[in-house]
Amino acid sequence: MKVLINPKTGRYYYYKGPGDYHCKEGIIKEGDINSGSPRVMSTLKKEFIVFDAKAIDYHQTIKRGPQWIMPKDLGYVLTRTGLSKDSVVLEAGSGSGSATAFFARFVKKVYSYDVVEDHVKIAKKNTDYLGLENVEFEVGSVIDKVEGHEPVDLVFLDMPDPQEVFKKDLSLLSSGSFIVCYLPSITQIQQLVIAQMEHERLYVEEIAEVSIRNWRVGERVARPEHRKEIDHTAFLVFVRKL
Amino acid sequence: MKVLINPKTGRYYYYKGPGDYHCKEGIIKEGDINSGSPRVMSTLKKEFIVFDAKAIDYHQTIKRGPQWIMPKDLGYVLTRTGLSKDSVVLEAGSGSGSATAFFARFVKKVYSYDVVEDHVKIAKKNTDYLGLENVEFEVGSVIDKVEGHEPVDLVFLDMPDPQEVFKKDLSLLSSGSFIVCYLPSITQIQQLVIAQMEHERLYVEEIAEVSIRNWRVGERVARPEHRKEIDHTAFLVFVRKL
Amino acid sequence: MKVLINPKTGRYYYYKGPGDYHCKEGIIKEGDINSGSPRVMSTLKKEFIVFDAKAIDYHQTIKRGPQWIMPKDLGYVLTRTGLSKDSVVLEAGSGSGSATAFFARFVKKVYSYDVVEDHVKIAKKNTDYLGLENVEFEVGSVIDKVEGHEPVDLVFLDMPDPQEVFKKDLSLLSSGSFIVCYLPSITQIQQLVIAQMEHERLYVEEIAEVSIRNWRVGERVARPEHRKEIDHTAFLVFVRKL
Amino acid sequence: MKVLINPKTGRYYYYKGPGDYHCKEGIIKEGDINSGSPRVMSTLKKEFIVFDAKAIDYHQTIKRGPQWIMPKDLGYVLTRTGLSKDSVVLEAGSGSGSATAFFARFVKKVYSYDVVEDHVKIAKKNTDYLGLENVEFEVGSVIDKVEGHEPVDLVFLDMPDPQEVFKKDLSLLSSGSFIVCYLPSITQIQQLVIAQMEHERLYVEEIAEVSIRNWRVGERVARPEHRKEIDHTAFLVFVRKL
Repeated sequence: MKVLINPKTGRYYYYKGPGDYHCKEGIIKEGDINSGSPRVMSTLKKEFIVFDAKAIDYHQTIKRGPQWIMPKDLGYVLTRTGLSKDSVVLEAGSGSGSATAFFARFVKKVYSYDVVEDHVKIAKKNTDYLGLENVEFEVGSVIDKVEGHEPVDLVFLDMPDPQEVFKKDLSLLSSGSFIVCYLPSITQIQQLVIAQMEHERLYVEEIAEVSIRNWRVGERVARPEHRKEIDHTAFLVFVRKL
Repeated sequence: MKVLINPKTGRYYYYKGPGDYHCKEGIIKEGDINSGSPRVMSTLKKEFIVFDAKAIDYHQTIKRGPQWIMPKDLGYVLTRTGLSKDSVVLEAGSGSGSATAFFARFVKKVYSYDVVEDHVKIAKKNTDYLGLENVEFEVGSVIDKVEGHEPVDLVFLDMPDPQEVFKKDLSLLSSGSFIVCYLPSITQIQQLVIAQMEHERLYVEEIAEVSIRNWRVGERVARPEHRKEIDHTAFLVFVRKL
Repeated sequence: MKVLINPKTGRYYYYKGPGDYHCKEGIIKEGDINSGSPRVMSTLKKEFIVFDAKAIDYHQTIKRGPQWIMPKDLGYVLTRTGLSKDSVVLEAGSGSGSATAFFARFVKKVYSYDVVEDHVKIAKKNTDYLGLENVEFEVGSVIDKVEGHEPVDLVFLDMPDPQEVFKKDLSLLSSGSFIVCYLPSITQIQQLVIAQMEHERLYVEEIAEVSIRNWRVGERVARPEHRKEIDHTAFLVFVRKL
Repeated sequence: MKVLINPKTGRYYYYKGPGDYHCKEGIIKEGDINSGSPRVMSTLKKEFIVFDAKAIDYHQTIKRGPQWIMPKDLGYVLTRTGLSKDSVVLEAGSGSGSATAFFARFVKKVYSYDVVEDHVKIAKKNTDYLGLENVEFEVGSVIDKVEGHEPVDLVFLDMPDPQEVFKKDLSLLSSGSFIVCYLPSITQIQQLVIAQMEHERLYVEEIAEVSIRNWRVGERVARPEHRKEIDHTAFLVFVRKL
């Protein structure tokens, strides 16, 4: 796959041909795209830059469905919990597989559960498309899965009422390991915090919101973008097992 | 190592004994710390929670020196560039080894260069302490290293004037691969952007600032923290090779 | 004028009749609007709340043109400079008259200059519509106006290259008085700061960006709005006369 | 009063003499301070800039006590509600008189109530010091004051449980007028919103948080300040009378 960008008009993904690429800026010839030149001209005389798609570009083209976890949020989960190539992650729900894919890319093994069969199907289709093989999907509630589960280093919960999981035996987590909850609303966090207060072996270590602000910088301008298509996604609650 | 936290008074790291832990809240008995109980009492009747230190806790205790890259920034670099367990990263400078350690944890191999010998020493000491073996350090300027270097998936530049690197042959990066620059000041970004404009095979895809906001949530309170010890660290510039 | 709001579908301004109000939710009867009831039903069975328009609602309905200064920015200018009912303000340019109107509402007298005749016409039309009589408009460059001007408490500059004003005799400002510059780009601020460094009697006391974040709070939800139509407007530079 | 600033070491307020000013940078001679020169040298060879104190500088020197409303928050209240020189404001509590002073400066008349006698004393002392005469203070609960009160354009509530006021007859506010609540915690806002839902003649038009971010800009640097002494103060809830 190739990425075609005209900085003023748009960004396109060219799946390996055969064929030219048709867009509102005209036609971009297949031969030009594959010539190795960093810049090509469309028939309507618009210049595009061209480069090979990398993993993140494929990630951006997967089918979007419920809950699309963004890089800003998942990046902080990865570094803040100190995971590594040797880690095992359990996540629920599977959503569209965006978080699944980021985890699968960086850790050894991912277990992904979702009560909705269609979510699991989409998530699996997406991770397959991305060539990720270290994910085990299963339809079902994480609440029924945690007891007796293989040990994991992180339980990532993107679901309503994650505190329901606290009622189960959490031996799959060793002392110091993390449960991270992805929650859009403060009201949900309050319920979670209250549930944690009553739990002998859980501690809320951090409640964080991650924001990205993009800038436009040139020779004569340097300012933040005027608008933010996405400002708020969710809060991240980092809970540690005692 | 154990982590001891009294939510109101402080957080301590207890290196494996022998011996009790002495702090301003009194003495915490070694036997209590290692008893497996999630809560212990100090001799001054302050309650602490206890859990086993995980990688991120060890990371927090390494020796800090110049440029301490925070999880918020490095997390976004990891996910935004779409790296993986199979990636190879080149970074300069080594700084205190904080970025080095995060990269080493998640990718296959890290090459770390710094012009200051002391930085390399500190960074190496820190990654050794963290048990990370997939880092190759070398004293010297990245500007002299990139030409003829083994191919890498990401060049991460935390240094003044990163655009100096643009003057070199960048064949170590394939089409679509990333150079990410960590720059505290907008003036530096302007110089970088101008240098990129004159380069046939580079494209600035995103200029971003990552912010974290922490919250305090309880049964009767839900508000952001009043102050921010660290607000601004640096901007991240994502450059793609064409 | 009346304000009609259906919280889910939209907000309308009903100028004093005669006549019913037609909108996509159906017809709202004039009689209902003027009945004094706080809630009315449209013919398509959509409920609207109704209240009398106040100054800020009239402000929202004035003709928009270049540079629409928002309440968030002008509010901080008013309080941060410590103006009062007895203050005199000089502003340039007039823009659409949004800043003009806010100043005129709170201070004794406003002098408003703009090099573009059309801006002055729009701004005057708007302040007339809002019933504000304490503004004196004039077409022309502020650079030609400051020398020998009646004393003012604040010079507010929403224009390119405000540092040009620094070259003039600034006796219209007493010691401690403010020049506030409204500048969208950091590059402009740099030029301003450099000009101030060379000026014996000016001091940049604060460079600030004001942000508003809106929340949605109900019985079961409490979260920031997902998107921000307007994130960045401009930076405010507070300069004091020595 | 004079303001003395050494940009690197600190900011001092020199109350009209007689006498020199002593500070950690040495002694600054009274004669120098009053010479009209914009720059003076301390005996320890530190240069200070000097300018006459204006209203905002006096405001910064008043005695601080409970709830110090900041310019960022009060500025937005003033412009967002569209008040003017002819407006009448009722506020509760008086706090330290910071909001009181800002209102008094810009509107015709302020009524200020506080249940704590000491707050009223401090607030009155502060507004007297600032020379503001259009404030009427009274010890007592606003809940007992609103019924039968002289009409006002804005009720500003900086107090716990402001929704208690909603139980009273609110004829002091005409249709379209504002109640603005200053609330530190989201939990308080939820209670307010729920109370408003049950009220026939109130509508929550906006819930906002105002943030200021300060920048450091020079010839070679342009970046946000590294830390924020004050990040969160409170949320502002704008309620309209129907």
